[in-house]
Amino acid sequence: MNDLPRLPDAEHPVQVLTEAECRELLAGAQLGRLALSHRNEPDIFPVNFWTHGDTFLVHGPQDVRAAVGRSSQHVVLEGDGREAGTVWSVMAKGTIRELDRPEDLETVRQRRLRAWILAPDSAFLELSPAKITGRRIAVGPEERY
Amino acid sequence: MNDLPRLPDAEHPVQVLTEAECRELLAGAQLGRLALSHRNEPDIFPVNFWTHGDTFLVHGPQDVRAAVGRSSQHVVLEGDGREAGTVWSVMAKGTIRELDRPEDLETVRQRRLRAWILAPDSAFLELSPAKITGRRIAVGPEERY
Repeated sequence: MNDLPRLPDAEHPVQVLTEAECRELLAGAQLGRLALSHRNEPDIFPVNFWTHGDTFLVHGPQDVRAAVGRSSQHVVLEGDGREAGTVWSVMAKGTIRELDRPEDLETVRQRRLRAWILAPDSAFLELSPAKITGRRIAVGPEERY
Repeated sequence: MNDLPRLPDAEHPVQVLTEAECRELLAGAQLGRLALSHRNEPDIFPVNFWTHGDTFLVHGPQDVRAAVGRSSQHVVLEGDGREAGTVWSVMAKGTIRELDRPEDLETVRQRRLRAWILAPDSAFLELSPAKITGRRIAVGPEERY
């Protein structure tokens, strides 16, 4: 078996990633986007996140707290990046809750999570993924148009 | 008036951007994320986009076409980036439609838009924003944890 990742190319432009590959890519990302839905209208918040066992700890600006409160139960955390003529994008779909109980805050303290965004009243949350999917897509040789 | 952008810092960590600033930042971005909602569940698709007058032309993988077809009317296009100890994130909220009429494809041809993702059956769409918002947020000095 070849341990090198197969990269997509013009002939096979889309590579579906395994969950392990998705988790590895998310573990190396810092900036992500949390998509929520309220009354069937989507919204996106830029967030910072860390892997935490099977879940993801999420830190976001203050308005993410209120948005999560009124959001539908299902949310999506997305991370992406560019590498060697490809883009990768990984989606972790699941449920999210605010970390506000004493034992939660202890988790944040023990993991030494630093508030990445300096804004006051930011929120720590935990996303429990039900499904993690991702893909790498080959991009064309011209990057500027 | 000072033409230099005011950057957020620890004392004023969140800077709300004007629509003009938002449009300028989006004009310099290539990779964005399109958030859709179906039955009050959000989904995110990585897309490439270009400004086109007041609207945004969006190019995405094949499954974005089907997702747009079943999505609620309101969608969000998000772009973000990192600059000098800050992250910026801009959201264009509005409605989207597939560019599939002959005059639409002429627009794509005239703008010489190249399919950025090499996947076959990708889709060109046009997002008409009703509201464009964005902010810059100061991030902490430690980037790795």
